[in-house]
Formats: sequence, structure tokens, C-alpha cells
Amino acid sequence: MSDKDIEKSFERSAERMRGDNKTFASDLTDQDYNDPERHQDHDMKIEYSRIEKSPSMEQVHAWQREHIKKDDQSKEGYPLNTIIDPAMREMYQVVHNAGMTNVFDRFSEQQPTQCKFCIEGLSCQLCANGPCRISKKAPRGVCGVDAHTMVARNFMYRHVTIGTSANIFHCHQAARTLKAAGESPDSGLKIRDAEKLKKYADMAGLDANQPIEKLAIDFAQWVMDDIHAPHHVESKTVEAFAPTKRKELWRKLGLFPGGGYSEVAYSQTQCMTNFNSDPIEFLLRSVRLGIANEYQGLFMLNIIQEILMGTQKIAMKQQNMGLLKENKINIITNGHMPLLAHVAIDIASTDEWQQKAKAAGAEGIQILGHVCEGQQLINYEGTHNQAAYGGQEGEWLSQEYLLATGVVDLFMFDYNCTVPTMPLFAKKFGTKLLSTHPVIKLQGTETLDFVPEKMKEQAIKALDMAIEAYKERKSQNKETYIPPHVSDCMVGFSTESVKAALGGSFDPLIEQIANGNIRGIATIVGCTTARYGQGGSNIFKITKGLIENNILVLSGGCTSSVMEYTGLTNPNAAEECGDGLKAVCQQLGIPPVLTYGACVDIGKMTHTAKELADALDVDTNMLPLVIGAPEYLEQKAVADACTAVALGWLVHVAPVPSITGSDVVVKTLTETTETLGLGKVVVEMDAEKTIQIYVDHIEKKRKELGLN
Amino acid sequence: MSDKDIEKSFERSAERMRGDNKTFASDLTDQDYNDPERHQDHDMKIEYSRIEKSPSMEQVHAWQREHIKKDDQSKEGYPLNTIIDPAMREMYQVVHNAGMTNVFDRFSEQQPTQCKFCIEGLSCQLCANGPCRISKKAPRGVCGVDAHTMVARNFMYRHVTIGTSANIFHCHQAARTLKAAGESPDSGLKIRDAEKLKKYADMAGLDANQPIEKLAIDFAQWVMDDIHAPHHVESKTVEAFAPTKRKELWRKLGLFPGGGYSEVAYSQTQCMTNFNSDPIEFLLRSVRLGIANEYQGLFMLNIIQEILMGTQKIAMKQQNMGLLKENKINIITNGHMPLLAHVAIDIASTDEWQQKAKAAGAEGIQILGHVCEGQQLINYEGTHNQAAYGGQEGEWLSQEYLLATGVVDLFMFDYNCTVPTMPLFAKKFGTKLLSTHPVIKLQGTETLDFVPEKMKEQAIKALDMAIEAYKERKSQNKETYIPPHVSDCMVGFSTESVKAALGGSFDPLIEQIANGNIRGIATIVGCTTARYGQGGSNIFKITKGLIENNILVLSGGCTSSVMEYTGLTNPNAAEECGDGLKAVCQQLGIPPVLTYGACVDIGKMTHTAKELADALDVDTNMLPLVIGAPEYLEQKAVADACTAVALGWLVHVAPVPSITGSDVVVKTLTETTETLGLGKVVVEMDAEKTIQIYVDHIEKKRKELGLN
Repeated sequence: MSDKDIEKSFERSAERMRGDNKTFASDLTDQDYNDPERHQDHDMKIEYSRIEKSPSMEQVHAWQREHIKKDDQSKEGYPLNTIIDPAMREMYQVVHNAGMTNVFDRFSEQQPTQCKFCIEGLSCQLCANGPCRISKKAPRGVCGVDAHTMVARNFMYRHVTIGTSANIFHCHQAARTLKAAGESPDSGLKIRDAEKLKKYADMAGLDANQPIEKLAIDFAQWVMDDIHAPHHVESKTVEAFAPTKRKELWRKLGLFPGGGYSEVAYSQTQCMTNFNSDPIEFLLRSVRLGIANEYQGLFMLNIIQEILMGTQKIAMKQQNMGLLKENKINIITNGHMPLLAHVAIDIASTDEWQQKAKAAGAEGIQILGHVCEGQQLINYEGTHNQAAYGGQEGEWLSQEYLLATGVVDLFMFDYNCTVPTMPLFAKKFGTKLLSTHPVIKLQGTETLDFVPEKMKEQAIKALDMAIEAYKERKSQNKETYIPPHVSDCMVGFSTESVKAALGGSFDPLIEQIANGNIRGIATIVGCTTARYGQGGSNIFKITKGLIENNILVLSGGCTSSVMEYTGLTNPNAAEECGDGLKAVCQQLGIPPVLTYGACVDIGKMTHTAKELADALDVDTNMLPLVIGAPEYLEQKAVADACTAVALGWLVHVAPVPSITGSDVVVKTLTETTETLGLGKVVVEMDAEKTIQIYVDHIEKKRKELGLN
Repeated sequence: MSDKDIEKSFERSAERMRGDNKTFASDLTDQDYNDPERHQDHDMKIEYSRIEKSPSMEQVHAWQREHIKKDDQSKEGYPLNTIIDPAMREMYQVVHNAGMTNVFDRFSEQQPTQCKFCIEGLSCQLCANGPCRISKKAPRGVCGVDAHTMVARNFMYRHVTIGTSANIFHCHQAARTLKAAGESPDSGLKIRDAEKLKKYADMAGLDANQPIEKLAIDFAQWVMDDIHAPHHVESKTVEAFAPTKRKELWRKLGLFPGGGYSEVAYSQTQCMTNFNSDPIEFLLRSVRLGIANEYQGLFMLNIIQEILMGTQKIAMKQQNMGLLKENKINIITNGHMPLLAHVAIDIASTDEWQQKAKAAGAEGIQILGHVCEGQQLINYEGTHNQAAYGGQEGEWLSQEYLLATGVVDLFMFDYNCTVPTMPLFAKKFGTKLLSTHPVIKLQGTETLDFVPEKMKEQAIKALDMAIEAYKERKSQNKETYIPPHVSDCMVGFSTESVKAALGGSFDPLIEQIANGNIRGIATIVGCTTARYGQGGSNIFKITKGLIENNILVLSGGCTSSVMEYTGLTNPNAAEECGDGLKAVCQQLGIPPVLTYGACVDIGKMTHTAKELADALDVDTNMLPLVIGAPEYLEQKAVADACTAVALGWLVHVAPVPSITGSDVVVKTLTETTETLGLGKVVVEMDAEKTIQIYVDHIEKKRKELGLN
């Protein structure tokens, strides 16, 4: 950037921080492309005609199943040996052939230089005496830190405190929105599940018999007050909603958290140079943060978002890039907090706005979800019958490729996961970008302030932007290409909807577990990575193996997209299960993979698990259950793993986390925690071995419960 | 550690988290020494007789002044070419000759492997697709992050959020203590400056005419409530105590913060993978955190600690290892929060406890401060006349060497800076270790819970431990050695004490600035580092140059120790100043370096600056003032630099922060911020050039004020 660019950018940021809703013209310079040799605009020739097209969806599914039997997912042939999403396979070629930067090619570029100290957690950059690296020759950092403390501290401050902050922050913003729904009739917000609000407000000890708007305000305030309580005041949400036996254990172990933000600040403080140097303390703190992460984060935000958007309901829906329409105004909404997006869907679904779209020359206007925001939208009852809802796009890895279709008019996003290169793709392919929360800003991109009271006004602004972008797209008459792939999938599973499908009680499910038709449950959650052998492949391979072994799978996060584009969320997939699970699925007409939605919907899975444990009258750690994140990517996933350890579960993660530099840290997380009644972590990269670990753990738990 | 060791350590941590006051036996194994080749206990032969002894303090001062004229502070001759503390020079030899790990030798060990990517801020370890490094060949991380975003994000999450958390956490704990002082007469806590409490409670809008205990509770609660407020609610402490013109600017720039912990969580959330990717946003956020860091951190904790321990008062006191007494029970109290330590000094000063010490065969019991905790104790009026107060030890670099004297019976610590190797030294030299806050735990070391209501009881426990340790030391009849060096220094400077010395108003000081006798003010604050050319040398060199140029210096942090052992806090140092400053110092009988105390006492300097600006009726950025951290070490220093930028000041830092990988980040922090009315950062390693930068800036500001 030039001097002027910096000042402009600075002032723009300042204005955005004040919450002005001003539009900022994109002012990306060529330097933003960063590598003049490769990424210059003029070099990027988009040639859709050169795409090697995928066959029909049926043939794709057959290919996927054959493909993962081969052991060819290494560097040779990468990335097309790992990408199994047919749409992404096509669009990768467009982007790669044009020489544009993209996530898989960047992974290749990073490979020769990945640092072995960083991989093992043995490098520290906290103080000005460093950076330090620990080796046999230099067994301590300058301050005196040893390998164990360095690894444990890196684990906590790089991953756990950030992930925990993010999930609680998400819940905090949802609570602000619920409050606005109660306070501001003009906001466009609705309270769609009043019964849920009453139920949880009652559990919180509030008077549930007051007017629903007032109750929304009180409940939202109660949640925000708990999030903002001091670390030394026991959390009210944990007290109200966590399993009784767990609470006893957490108190015994000193893990019962206070207010989440204060807990984060406590933990951050410990990560100062020359501060805490007990590695076990960092790991215990991480588990404690995991509890706040759940009850002041995931669990509570799920409740609030369902109150606002309608509880999940089982339905058949569609996924993938084939849902884009060349002659429609296509809006993609990305992120994890579909609050403004949902208001936009409401508005766009009106005749008035469909007519506006037609007046602009389009066949209509549609809003499609992407990543976890999309997984939530596809599940909520409130979205299901909306005319402007267009379905679900893909996982986070595909967003650059999605824009490369050339037909995305507006890409709006809140929260993570929006990759930093979106401005480059937006510029190249004529997409407008719009951040809907100042917590996420991209270079040269407009950002709305987060004012839930004004969501209706903001949603209208977004729709207007999309209409303008569509007109511009059409006026330029550029070539575009939409990969034709669409998956049919059954969605909308959650504690309530599963129970309703079972006739109002978990007993039928428990019976199937008891009789062994279903051996147990695995949640396959989290992200996808660009690593060799991953990119969705590892998730697919493991899930296939689990259902063959009669293990029912719940999915949440980008894993749900993988389940969708591989056909595993289609009831037809019952055919691929072991006999017991097959019979159950066919009887109920459900697939063997139940998508609970987003990564943040893990809170719904822990809720289901709690209800199952309650029905069985056992502690949560007794359940025949495994938590898997076979392609975990980021910090929220690590915080979620800490939640699972707190709840007593086996958590499988891959790739290998950066903790291998300390045998103490590895041993503590993979063995010692379990001896205290907590869960433990398993790290395994090989899919076959992973399946066996899950099976063995579930069989062990069955035995402990006295089941055959 | 063995399996059993891990489990033991785990359970111990769990028990400590619950707040049990149980004593845990030290269970360090030989493996804790980590490098069997070098650091085995049996190899460590302590030979005090081989020390090359320093000459008398007068001769030391002469040597220091000659030494820094030489340009020999590089790798050759390190570290004795940088260590200028005579006591540390002697004890370094003991430790080094014995082959024990120690901070200077560890710095040497790390040198050949320091990573250039880490040094420039161009490595990222946040997600499982990484670690990534940015180079010409790979200009973006796997996610797509460019150099600018990576550097800015690293800056914020590795440094600013941690440092801000720590300072606000400190204030939070101080407020808890003030509340306990009001609530629990049995706590041993006293409200020593009731007038100060009334003054600030009144400014906070509280009713200052209620009973003082009740007022303490209300004020403490008001502070805690503000710290725990949401990020979207404007901070009441900032509103009450920040300069009016600054508040206007901060509102205009969107920098006015809400509750500090919520702000930290907001910022942490932004550091998620695939989240914010606007580098300017990270830098602006850092400045915003800097404001919370000041008013919910430094400034407020200074007020509260003075209320509890007595406001600072100018006095002659002593510093350095020569204050240790072979035949006394020697307690060192280390850290930054001398709350429990102060209660211990109160108790140990009674005849009863001095008699107890004598009954144990000692001549008495004394408590000496170390690092910033010590700098606070030496300054507070409440400590000055206490019989058991023994004076100030050294800077953070010297703590390993301090224990190597063999006469430290108890080393108690809260908060930072306590190095991770203290358990090794404690074991070797027979010192008992005691953490007085569970936020800091060392391997195999006892930790007290933080219960301010029980401080008296806890202080008694600490004193008992020290008596036992003394008996054991004497029974073993081990060889010990105390370097004989002691500095006489004038201490206790602060806004109030300076004003009182000037006759109740800043006018005489302003007059001396206006007439040019004093050209301006430089604060030399922060840490010391183990780097070549640093270790106190850079601080000393720069300060000498400044006072020669008639610039009055305020010090805070480990810099104060340097000022003390170099004689610059002695009124005699007036002789070394330029003519104008010399005259002023001699007239007032003060030294040219006024020690304000600890690094956390920077809040007192900003207070002085605010009062000077008010007296001149100008905004704070108009003052002829430079903030310098010539040997900054850790994250609080970075947060403090952000505070200074927010207040409009030039901040000099050395060593070079890890931001050089991005020209955008460097330019924003070193140039662009100033154009918006904020301050800016200057990075300079050379002492001569640094002095010139300070002089030039002060002269520029004088000109702007119309002064010659």
C-alpha cells in the first residue's frame, strides 16, 4: 500500500469503528495481489471451457466411494486426489489454471518451509528476549521456560483462549439480538419459538409468565450478565444447564468457571512472560475454559438463535453450487451468526422484493447459505418455507472457488470463516462484499455496524447492493460458469426434532442402542483442512467406516457439507450401513448421518447427549459416544475439544495438534485427564485406525454399561 | 516427569485451583534440569571464592560511566560487557561457573537458532493448515493471510491482548482487596489514604460522605463493574478520569472502549483464523485496548494500591543485594502486587515476630522487595517506617543470581515477573518458594489461594515458612555469599509528592520548563533485557545523555533498579546534568531521575502529565514529553506503548518489535497514527541516536508551545 492508501484505510477503519454505515469504495491496489510474478490481474485468464467436468451426482457418489479405497492421497496428485466435492473439483481447475492464489495451491507453496519447531509447539515469540526455540542444545527459552510449559502455554493462548472468546462473543451478540427483538418492533426480528424461550427462562429462574417481549429482554440480560461476571463468581448458566454429576466433579477439580470473559482475561494473564510456568495448570485452565465455552457459548447461543429463527425441523433440502442461478440475483451469506441474514431472507421473500428483482431484469432474488451460517439456515424451521431461501453452498474451503463462478452478486458475512483473499476474488469476479459485524473487516471492504435494532434497515441495504451488483454483472456480459451439482439431503436434526421423530421420547433410540442395532454414537464435527489426505476425504472415509460398524453419526460444521455432497445425509445411505443401523434407518426413513448443522451446533449434540445420559441415569462420560474432529482447523475447534474433555468424552482430532514437543502435555491430555473422570484426546491420522479407535471405545463403554 | 509425577502434579494443580491452602512438598525430579549434559545437580559446584569481586560503590559508579563510553557491548565479552549491576556481575560468575542454567547464558544458547520469520512477525501458528511463513515465494499463508495482516494480528494477540488483560486483571485483584479491606476487619488490611479514596470516589460520582469502609466497598465495586461491563457500553472509568480533549478524539476515532475484559474477548475473537484481515483494524484495536489498559488498569490500580498502602512519599532508601543479612531471616517478595506482602511487613514489624525470629536463632526477620513489587514497597509511605522492611533488591534479570547468595529463606511472589527456573535455584540454594496468587504457579511449588479477607492468616503462614527455612539453612551450615553493594537513593516520587515538594502546585516546574532550565521530560520505563548492549546498559547510557541535555527523567519498572544501582537516583547525580537541570536539582535537593516506582506506576506518570497539561490548558499530546522503553521485554510493555500512543505521545522502544515484516504496520505505528492526533512509535537501538530523537521531539514540542 502507498502512504495515501494507509491513511485512507486507517480513516476508513476509524469510521467503521464508530459505526458509520458509510459505503467505502474498494480501493485495493495491485500490490494487494502481493506476488507480482504470479498473481497479477492481467495474468489471470479465466477459461471455464478448460474445466474437466464431473459426471452426474450419482456417478460422483460412486467415484467418491471407489476413490477413498485407494491410498493415493499424498503429495503426488494433490489437491485433486483429496478434493471430493464435485463442484469444488471443477472450480479449482478454473482458479488454478488462471494462476490465481487459492487455498490448495497456497498449502502446496507452504510445504517446503513449514517449521518443525512450530509444528511441535517448541517456538515462542512472546517477549523481546526471543524468539526462542527449544532443542537438545538449548533446552530452555531465555526466560527459563522448558518444553512442557512452552507447549502448554502456546496451546492455551494461541488456541483455547481465542476459541473460547469467539464462541462466547457469538453468544453475547446473539443475546444482544434477542434483547433487540424484545425491545424494538422495528428491527425486523421475530421471536419464533416462544415456548423455547419460556422453557429456558424458567430453568434460569426467571418469571416465564410475563409478556414474551419482556421475557426476551430479561433472559438476554441474564445471559449477558453471566458472560460478564467476574471469574470468581460461579457461572449461573453452568449451574442452570450443566449435568448435575459433572458439576460435582468440576467443583471437586476446581474447574467450575465464573464469567467467561473474566476467565479468558485470567488465562491470558497467565500467559505473560515470566508468569505461570506449571504446564498442568495451563491444561486444567483450558478444560475450565471449555466449560465456559459450552454454557456461555455454544449451548446458550444455540438456544437463543433457535428462539429467534425457529427450532430445527427435519426436512429434505438441497446443497451445492448447482443451486446458483445465472439469471437470478445470487446472495451468499457466510459466517456463523445468521441473524441479519435471516431478516434479509424474510424481506427478500416478499413479493415486493421479488418484483424489485424482476424490475432489475432478474428472474428473482435468492439467498444461499455458506459454511456454518448456511448449515444453520438450512436447519431452522423459520427458513424452510421462505421463497427467497436458495439452499446451502459448501464448506469453507470452497469460498474462493464459489466466487469464481462469476454469478455471486453479494457475499455478505459475519463472524468467521471468511478468508482474507475474498477481496481479490470479489474484484476479479464482480462480487460485492459486505461485512455485517465490525468484528470482521476485510481490506477495502464495507462493514456494517452491529446494531440489531436496525437489522431490517441493514438487510434492505444489503438487498439493494445485490440488485445493483446484478445489474452490473449483466451489463458487463461476462462469461460465467455454474457447476451443475446438487445434493438432496435430509436436514434439521436436533435434540427436539430427533425426539419428536421418535415419538416424543429417546426410549426407542435407547432401545436400539441397548439391543445393539446401534452400537453407539459418533459426532463428526468441525472443519475441513487443505492437508494431504484431508479436504473432506478423511471425514468421508471415517464416517463410511463408522456407519458400516453400526455407529450412528451426528455431524456439525463443515463436516455437514461433506456429508451432504457425499450423499451420506440422504436416507438412501441407509444401504451403506451395517445391518443393525440399516434396519433402524430404513424403519425411520432417516439417513445414518444426522446433520445437526454448524460447528456451533455442537451445543445441540451435547444437549442430546445430556438427555440420553439423563434417560439412562448415568453421568455423561458413561455414554457409548465418541467425539471426532477428523479435519479440525481452528481455535474454536480446540476450545470445543476442551468442552468434550470436561464432559468426559473421548475426542479424536486430526491433524496432529502442535503439542508433540512435550511428552508431559501429550500424556496429560491423552491419558491423565481420563483417570480423573474427565475425557481425553486421541490423535490419529490414519482413517482405518481411527475407525477402530472409535469402535473400541464404544464397545468398552457398552461393556461398562452392561450392554452386549 | 514420570507418569506418577504428572498425576501428582495434576492433582496438586486441581487442589490449588480449589483454593486449598495445603502444602505440597517440592517434587522436582532431576529431569526438570532438562539437559543432562550440563545442568545436573551433581555438576553444579558453587565456588564463591572464585568470584571476581567488584570494588566499592563509588568505584563501581566511576567504572559504569567509563564503561558505557566504550563500544564493546556486542557478542564478544558478553554478558559481563552488558551487566552493570555490581552485585549481579559477581553472582553471575558463581552461577555460570557452576554450569547452572541462567538467563544470560540461555540468551547465548538461543542465538544461533533465532528464527528470522519469527523476528519479523512473519510466522503464524494459529491453525491446523499451518504453521505458515511468509516469503517472496509464498506471499500468503494457507488461509490467504498476507504479511500485513499476519504481522498486525501477531502483534495484537501475542502482545497487546495479553498485556492489557494482565494490567486490568491486576487492577481487578486490587479492587477485590480494597473491598475486603472495607468488609473484613480481620483481614489485616488497612485503608491508609482515606482522603485519596474520598477524592476518587467523588470523581466517580459516588457519595464520598459515607463511612470509609462502606465507601471502600462501593468504590471497589464501581471499578469491578466497569472492568466487567460489555464492550458496547462506554467505560465509566475512562469517562471519569481521562483528559477531556482526548476523550473527544477517541470518540471521533471510534477508540473509546467499553469494559476491558469484554474488549479483550472482542479482540481475541478477531484473531481467529479466517476472521478479521484488515491490518489497520488490528492496530486501531490495539490503541483502543491501550485506553482500557490505562484507566481500568494502570491508573486505577495505582489509586487503589495507594489507598491501601499509603500514597508515595519522598525519602532516602537503599537498594541491592548488600541489604541481605547472613544472620537475619531474609524474605524476598517479588511481583507487582504487594498487597499480601504489605500485610506481612506489618506483622513482621511487631516485637512479637522479631522475638520469634530471635527464638529461631536469627538477629531478626526482614522483608525485601524485588522487581516492581519492591519498587512499589520502597515508595509507599506505609512501608517507610516499618521495622521489618529491608529495602529493595534488583531488577528481574537478577532473581536467579539473588537466590545463588544462599541466604534467601523465602521467596514469595504474586503476578509476574518470576522466572520458570526459580524451583531449580530454590532447591539448590535452600530457598522456600511461595506463590500468593493461583494465577501464577511454578512446577512443584506451593500456591496460596487469593483470599484478601484472609491475608493476615496467609501472611503469618509465609512468615512461619521463612522461620523454618532459616532454621534449616543454619542447621546445614552451607557456605553463602552476599555481594556487599548497596546504593543510597531518593525514592517516592509521584504526582502528589512532586507537587508537595514544589509547594503544592506544578507552577514552579512549569516555570523551569518555560524558562528552559528543564527542556522537557522523558519517562524511562519498562524492563531490562538480556540482549547484547542491553542488560541495563542501554537504559543507563540513554538516561545519562538525557540529563546532560537538561531533560528531567521519570523512571518506573526495572529501569528504576538500573537508576538506583548506577547512582542516578541519588541527589549527587545533579552534578552530571546540564547546567539548567543541575541548578534545579540542586536547588530542590533532588536527583535528575525521579523514580515513580514500578512499571505499573506508569499510571502515575500519565497522571502527572495530565495535571501538567491541565495546568498549561493544552491537550496531552502538546507536552514536551517522550516515553521511552529502551529495554522493553514483555506484553504489558507493549500494551503500555499503546496507551502512550492513545495519549498522543512519542514512544521509543528497543529492542525492535516483531513487526518489521510489514511496511504497512511499521508505517502505521511510526507515522500515520500521529497525523490523526494520536502518538507514534519510534524504534531505535543506538543510544546516541535515541538521545537525539528525544531531544529533537522535545524541542519540536517546545516550539509548538511557543517556548524557546
